[in-house]
Amino acid sequence: MNEKSARASHPAENLGPNAGLIGRPGSRATLDTPALVLDLDALERNIAAMAAHARAAGVALRPHAKTHKSAEIARRQVAAGAIGISCVTLGEAEVMVHAGIPGVHITSPQVTKPKIARLMALNRNSPLGLSVAVDNPENLQALSEASSSSGKRLRVMIDFSAGHNRTGCATPADALALARASREAAFIEISGIQSYSGQLQHVAIRAERRARVLEQAEILRGLVRDLEREGIAVPVVSGGGTGSFDLDPEARVFTELQVGSYVFMDVDYLRAMKDGRNAPPFETSLFVQTAVVSVNAREYVTTDAGLKCFATDGPLPEPALGAPPGSRYEFFGDEHGKLFVPPGSARPGLGAHIECVTPHCDPTVNLHDFYHVVRGDTLVDIWSIEARGKR
Amino acid sequence: MNEKSARASHPAENLGPNAGLIGRPGSRATLDTPALVLDLDALERNIAAMAAHARAAGVALRPHAKTHKSAEIARRQVAAGAIGISCVTLGEAEVMVHAGIPGVHITSPQVTKPKIARLMALNRNSPLGLSVAVDNPENLQALSEASSSSGKRLRVMIDFSAGHNRTGCATPADALALARASREAAFIEISGIQSYSGQLQHVAIRAERRARVLEQAEILRGLVRDLEREGIAVPVVSGGGTGSFDLDPEARVFTELQVGSYVFMDVDYLRAMKDGRNAPPFETSLFVQTAVVSVNAREYVTTDAGLKCFATDGPLPEPALGAPPGSRYEFFGDEHGKLFVPPGSARPGLGAHIECVTPHCDPTVNLHDFYHVVRGDTLVDIWSIEARGKR
Repeated sequence: MNEKSARASHPAENLGPNAGLIGRPGSRATLDTPALVLDLDALERNIAAMAAHARAAGVALRPHAKTHKSAEIARRQVAAGAIGISCVTLGEAEVMVHAGIPGVHITSPQVTKPKIARLMALNRNSPLGLSVAVDNPENLQALSEASSSSGKRLRVMIDFSAGHNRTGCATPADALALARASREAAFIEISGIQSYSGQLQHVAIRAERRARVLEQAEILRGLVRDLEREGIAVPVVSGGGTGSFDLDPEARVFTELQVGSYVFMDVDYLRAMKDGRNAPPFETSLFVQTAVVSVNAREYVTTDAGLKCFATDGPLPEPALGAPPGSRYEFFGDEHGKLFVPPGSARPGLGAHIECVTPHCDPTVNLHDFYHVVRGDTLVDIWSIEARGKR
Repeated sequence: MNEKSARASHPAENLGPNAGLIGRPGSRATLDTPALVLDLDALERNIAAMAAHARAAGVALRPHAKTHKSAEIARRQVAAGAIGISCVTLGEAEVMVHAGIPGVHITSPQVTKPKIARLMALNRNSPLGLSVAVDNPENLQALSEASSSSGKRLRVMIDFSAGHNRTGCATPADALALARASREAAFIEISGIQSYSGQLQHVAIRAERRARVLEQAEILRGLVRDLEREGIAVPVVSGGGTGSFDLDPEARVFTELQVGSYVFMDVDYLRAMKDGRNAPPFETSLFVQTAVVSVNAREYVTTDAGLKCFATDGPLPEPALGAPPGSRYEFFGDEHGKLFVPPGSARPGLGAHIECVTPHCDPTVNLHDFYHVVRGDTLVDIWSIEARGKR
């Protein structure tokens, strides 16, 4: 979708205080702050690079919407060849299905009564495909009963934990037993298996990351073999992440990758993936723009982006555009930050605009209502983050 | 406002997946999770206790809306006697003014061109009073010019940093100079001075906190004396916080307190204020309700509230209702948590609902769209968090 048609899809009153700046040359430097800024050229290159990688490696993509929570970005991923979109929450899946995104898969088991009721409603209204992870026989039974009542079959992926132990069956034997039960369950259809090795995504040394990815793949391959030996087809093996995007295909077990962060490349991932010889073919596209609002402290200037603008579970934001090289950023309460410049550098003045690379992109995005989409120095569009806060 | 009238003020479609449960006995235990839960009895007691304290101490209250971001809670604070509401962002102030809240004060300088334009628009439409902090002569000049153009006087509070050094004049001499300039500035009216000692709010030992509060107050009193000596009236001295609510009046310099967290009492504040002899007259009213979604790990059960449901800048959430005593909580990615129960305790089963005390309340609230308002075990209302994400 080009900028014009995307813009036309939103009513103007919902795009926040910067709506009037769309299309004005040089407007990036004058945003009402704090503002989440998305470099469209970089985003497009990241989406294209991952699509090319997947084609060359012979794997499909089902990118994770938990990273961007945006139907517009999902549409662009699908347009570049993704077979569907992964979601961690049911609320994200509702947004994606209603936006017409095909092949939506919910990576987290949906267990409680209210969630199962919403899942059934969504499944009835998903002409383009919906599946959900399952990791427990009791949950399988509840899903089967609800699907039977609703009259529409539900597609499930057997969730295998692979050492991460967040969700998923703990052992291949448990996964096999759950798959057998799923085959027998009324109104349940097995679409494949899912396995997310979250613990491997940020292993800093590439050689170590590779060894562990291949080791996990061997276990997963054994599970697939066991399932097929029982006549349970496994057309889909879904997993992987941005941190292992180039290793997962080598393992030759995943049919599709649930990569997420590659669209933005936050401080965290850039550090984890840069081990010198192997710079990733992705670049930073996401920033928070902040302005200097007080200059009375000796050691730093005070900016207007704090704990409520940046994720605080990872590294600190990294100053970029507008900040002298070598500057650093600290949080200073809910709505403020400290920008320290290196000795000898001029401090940005009152009202100056600075951009920072986001620390952990997913929870940072979840703090904002809009992407301020820029090409070079111009704001070209504003995209709602429709699935922000949706559970 | 009672539950009925508050409910009537919201269109039903905007209250999220739990709207249908309002008024059903026992509904608290069956919320669609994760959900921010507000214990209305506790909230009302907290609001009443702070109001009684202020009356007895002879200080006014201008409670901070950055904590709750809710017009409904602000209305209740005003109904209990607060003379106005403090906001840190202009976006919060816009929500409060439009909701008819009187005496809105913006505690953070508004510096950039877009913010000054919005501030002028808000000031023109604030029949019930608006003021803003100022800490810089250049900013004062810009505000004066904009106010002159808009044709309505702007009320400012001279912001004095008092050692916190986030915003505010660095020295009493600077504050005095800025007050002189403000007196001369066209379309500017000095409503008082503001001084927030953020660095003192979490000093753990009460005696030390007291000594430092009194020391800061002495400096502030000197500033007030200097201003009055020049004929600059200081009808308002605004500052303080929940951590020093009982010490600030003793300092006999503040005319009003900008207390915020007392309405909710998060893990952070409860720990900081409990020094044995001096338990605060406030209680926890705010929780996040989460459900168990996976039970396959040996050491813990997996819940559905993670980094996108809780602030991560402070302590961890503390398990309460539904969790065995001595349980502890950890984050497990964007949308999941780990609940550990003590040896010998029964683990909550699949689908069980647990509530946790929020770690740092302000940024936790900012992650949610609604308060699920309960009395005892019944959901009695849902309040929108209208100023969430508003800058």
